[in-house]
Amino acid sequence: MAQLRIALAQVNPTVGDLDGNADLIVEWSRRAADAGAHLVAFPEMTLTGYPVEDLALRSSFVQASQRALEKVARRLADAGLGDLPVVVGYLDRRSVSLVRAGQPAGSPLDAAAWLHGGEVLVRSAKHHLPNYGVFDEYRIFVRGDRLPVVRVHGVDVATVVCEDLWQDGGPVGVTATAGAGLLLALNASPYERDKDDVRLELCARRAREAGCALAYVNMVGGQDELVFDGDSVIVAADGTPLARAPQFVEHLLVADLALPAADPAREPGRTPVEALDGTTITVERHVLTPDPVPAYDVLPQEAAEPLDGLAEVYGALVTGTRDYVRKNGFRSVILGLSGGIDSALVTTIACDAIGPENVHVVLLPSRYSTDHSVSDAEELVKRQGVASRLVPIRGMVDAFEAELELTGLAAENLQARVRANVWMGLSNQEGHLVLTGGNKSELATGYSTLYGDSAGGFAPIKDLVKTMVWALARWRNAAVGRDLPFLHPFEAEPIPEAIIVKEPSAELRPDQKDRDTLPPYDVLDPLLVDYVERDMGRDALVAAGHDPALVERVIRLTDLAEYKRRQYPPGPKVTPKNFGRDRRVPITNRWRETT
Amino acid sequence: MAQLRIALAQVNPTVGDLDGNADLIVEWSRRAADAGAHLVAFPEMTLTGYPVEDLALRSSFVQASQRALEKVARRLADAGLGDLPVVVGYLDRRSVSLVRAGQPAGSPLDAAAWLHGGEVLVRSAKHHLPNYGVFDEYRIFVRGDRLPVVRVHGVDVATVVCEDLWQDGGPVGVTATAGAGLLLALNASPYERDKDDVRLELCARRAREAGCALAYVNMVGGQDELVFDGDSVIVAADGTPLARAPQFVEHLLVADLALPAADPAREPGRTPVEALDGTTITVERHVLTPDPVPAYDVLPQEAAEPLDGLAEVYGALVTGTRDYVRKNGFRSVILGLSGGIDSALVTTIACDAIGPENVHVVLLPSRYSTDHSVSDAEELVKRQGVASRLVPIRGMVDAFEAELELTGLAAENLQARVRANVWMGLSNQEGHLVLTGGNKSELATGYSTLYGDSAGGFAPIKDLVKTMVWALARWRNAAVGRDLPFLHPFEAEPIPEAIIVKEPSAELRPDQKDRDTLPPYDVLDPLLVDYVERDMGRDALVAAGHDPALVERVIRLTDLAEYKRRQYPPGPKVTPKNFGRDRRVPITNRWRETT
Repeated sequence: MAQLRIALAQVNPTVGDLDGNADLIVEWSRRAADAGAHLVAFPEMTLTGYPVEDLALRSSFVQASQRALEKVARRLADAGLGDLPVVVGYLDRRSVSLVRAGQPAGSPLDAAAWLHGGEVLVRSAKHHLPNYGVFDEYRIFVRGDRLPVVRVHGVDVATVVCEDLWQDGGPVGVTATAGAGLLLALNASPYERDKDDVRLELCARRAREAGCALAYVNMVGGQDELVFDGDSVIVAADGTPLARAPQFVEHLLVADLALPAADPAREPGRTPVEALDGTTITVERHVLTPDPVPAYDVLPQEAAEPLDGLAEVYGALVTGTRDYVRKNGFRSVILGLSGGIDSALVTTIACDAIGPENVHVVLLPSRYSTDHSVSDAEELVKRQGVASRLVPIRGMVDAFEAELELTGLAAENLQARVRANVWMGLSNQEGHLVLTGGNKSELATGYSTLYGDSAGGFAPIKDLVKTMVWALARWRNAAVGRDLPFLHPFEAEPIPEAIIVKEPSAELRPDQKDRDTLPPYDVLDPLLVDYVERDMGRDALVAAGHDPALVERVIRLTDLAEYKRRQYPPGPKVTPKNFGRDRRVPITNRWRETT
Repeated sequence: MAQLRIALAQVNPTVGDLDGNADLIVEWSRRAADAGAHLVAFPEMTLTGYPVEDLALRSSFVQASQRALEKVARRLADAGLGDLPVVVGYLDRRSVSLVRAGQPAGSPLDAAAWLHGGEVLVRSAKHHLPNYGVFDEYRIFVRGDRLPVVRVHGVDVATVVCEDLWQDGGPVGVTATAGAGLLLALNASPYERDKDDVRLELCARRAREAGCALAYVNMVGGQDELVFDGDSVIVAADGTPLARAPQFVEHLLVADLALPAADPAREPGRTPVEALDGTTITVERHVLTPDPVPAYDVLPQEAAEPLDGLAEVYGALVTGTRDYVRKNGFRSVILGLSGGIDSALVTTIACDAIGPENVHVVLLPSRYSTDHSVSDAEELVKRQGVASRLVPIRGMVDAFEAELELTGLAAENLQARVRANVWMGLSNQEGHLVLTGGNKSELATGYSTLYGDSAGGFAPIKDLVKTMVWALARWRNAAVGRDLPFLHPFEAEPIPEAIIVKEPSAELRPDQKDRDTLPPYDVLDPLLVDYVERDMGRDALVAAGHDPALVERVIRLTDLAEYKRRQYPPGPKVTPKNFGRDRRVPITNRWRETT
């Protein structure tokens, strides 16, 4: 056996920020070197950020990524880090490309490179391209066909990229054939509820398949609708977990591994291998340092505990909100605070994300607002210490009504739109990003006003059903005092109990309650989860025990609300399906599950 | 040679309207029978409409399509049309499917069927799946691997679907091997400027490759952002055009063809053939009627002239608007009429699409509106006969300003948002669809107000640069009296000359002009076309002769406006790239073409 100290740099790059991401690579490589690592690996597409979507088709962007890679290799050497092998994901292209209709322009590659001695030692690219859910990679990438195996201190280390682990056949099987001692997987694997367990099992299975230890480095941070949770992990050849990084923070996971020494008879060169998926993959061997390091004392193993269910979701929401604000160049946010649970939770998430001193709320009472709405909102302002102002909307609504005869729903929507005008105006005047408070239950059923309460730049809880909103509010209050990296240190419960227990109301007409329009949330929400997240049809929903009349009603509401959902701002995705680009149904569609 | 009278039913189905689309199939099959046709073909996915996007992944929808196909076969027989072979596109699934990560759930197929004698004779599916631009079909379909060859009155007729023509290898080459006498191609090929010429050349090339005549039937009508222009065509084995249908109207193209008689030695059965694209396609032969029909007198050939450039674009805009309104269940539209060119053109398009009696406009003068804005708008109302009302916004703006200190851009945006509140309120009250008037030049550069002038349900001219708006306004005035199916019979020029010649202004502050903020449109627009539609990078733009400083400025504006574009309603797509789902760039993106 040979000893190897590896470092997995679980970092948070920004899409398109080539200079900033290069700085990250140099800085975390330095930390790895300081920790005595023999090798450091970064996530998939660290240099460009992920996902780059159609930017991959812009030739100037691909060239910028290629140039940035060469430059970061030189910078590492100039910084005295030339001896440390650095494995990093970036965007490249196939140099000899087939020009064919339907092939992505310029044949881009979701690539990985080994940097060493100021140069790019070897380049490879993701072989299996995901093309489902949030992924559309057949659109922007062509597949890689190479497996690098690099000998580092006498250990043969192979590298693959993300989806290569999720599909059968391809580079993982070839790794076994190639007899590697360690498989490094570079990932940008988005967070979904309970995905951590799935990933750990997958890593264990693929390690056994590859016949060697597997080191899985994942991205962390938010990018538009996606949140990456980190949770990087190392497993032994038999699938046993060896080390694990915490979720939702940048982290350097350093681990000492005892790995099989490479067979010296395996010499540098290229060998094509059948990949058992109808393709051929070329194993490309390099030798950096042929001999094992002298024996040394190992570090204690680090094994972060994965977060429990609600903590994990809350962490994803805070991370998504923080990075959307920050990476889009904002420092502060503004939102309407109604006294209801949704805007209360969004305010709390915003405080946890960017600090109460950067959170601005507006209380916008109308003639239908109850006294407790205003007083509950004021109590929350006091507890959280956010900047607050009161803008009564009565005069503005009156001015519209002087010119227009609006009744019923039109009159209700007017109030919601007047409120949106106020927060958009303050956003334009003062430069805050507008947060909007809609949840998935109201978004799915269309229980919101287009250009009203749905208006804004980012929707932190758009992927939470209402019962989850309550559960997270209670969780957050109970979490006061816990040492989690995504919580602001409030000293008392940030959300007044009165806001959590009150009956939900839009307060757009006298005595209005959500239940006048919608089924009770504890009945509605499980049905929405089955319909929207599991894509179950009418018959399957009824068979699963949902009330047939309710199924008809909710499907009708949900299918009709499609247009409104299309106009909704991004928000963090925490469930397997949300609304947005991973559920694409035509707006014009006459087919109904129900008749 | 054998004679065959074929009918191509260029129809306009609606996505999801299985019953309505089945009615179309029965009705147009009846027309084909009445015209003495021996065979009728419908476009790709006629039974379901196209594109169905993620509806293809909903198992209940696939089943509904399969059942609807069986039912329409029986209905045709019940209507006495059982002897007429009917070839129709629908949604099916592969019965034995590989369950693998990343494969579309349920293995859906973009299928085609031959209906005859009340039954489904043979089923096949699109082999080449487009996955670029507006298409993402790797996401929702698996590929077909069968080529039906059906003997009809002694002629072997093969069928393929749309993209099968656009890619090399696959079913077209196999058609030659199979020795077919006619290749039927079922299409839903979206309109793009000047695509008609490309398609005709493609058909000629593929006919020569298949070694037989080719009949190309295309969908017509609008579906969300896509517009199908029809333009169905038949070419001889040497590529010579034989018949052509008009654009933007439903049409039955009937043509008498003299085709090679089938070799009787080729008997029914299945034969696998190498498809020269790495796959195998099974030729499935059927014999319906082995012997040629007795000689008969042929009909005169029909050859519609394709429309000239501007007429074609205008036809696409009217068709897209008409079908978006109608297919979404609206009868009328409402929009703000400013006195400027954009809202004037949109009003005219709306009148052409659904008639002036269904078009409602609102004049919303502010303190900065010029007198000529109101009088020019009133002149247009008079010429077009639309329903008009005047709602001054001064009082509403004053009411906001009484509560908020808004200056500069925030104050300008407020006015635009107050206007949007008015038309959204009237829409909610009276049930009209809101049209919005933004053009591609202002959309690209961000020169519009989110939730203000950009608010609405459909954006008819979102894919036109400003100079094109002017050109189409002049074209429409000059087209008075022309007999085109997408023009309302105005007796005089519908757009006042004063509106066309005035200098563009948003009129949100005193003496404001577009040129205060934007470069002149005759300089800006060609640059936007190169950057947005051709995806050229900075260096390429400069090399193409654009002013370097302007390139820097416009790229900066355009990249920063990404978020606003995401919130924009659909509109017809008439250029190869527009904004919307066929240009997907992350909202959070720090990379700039310029520094």
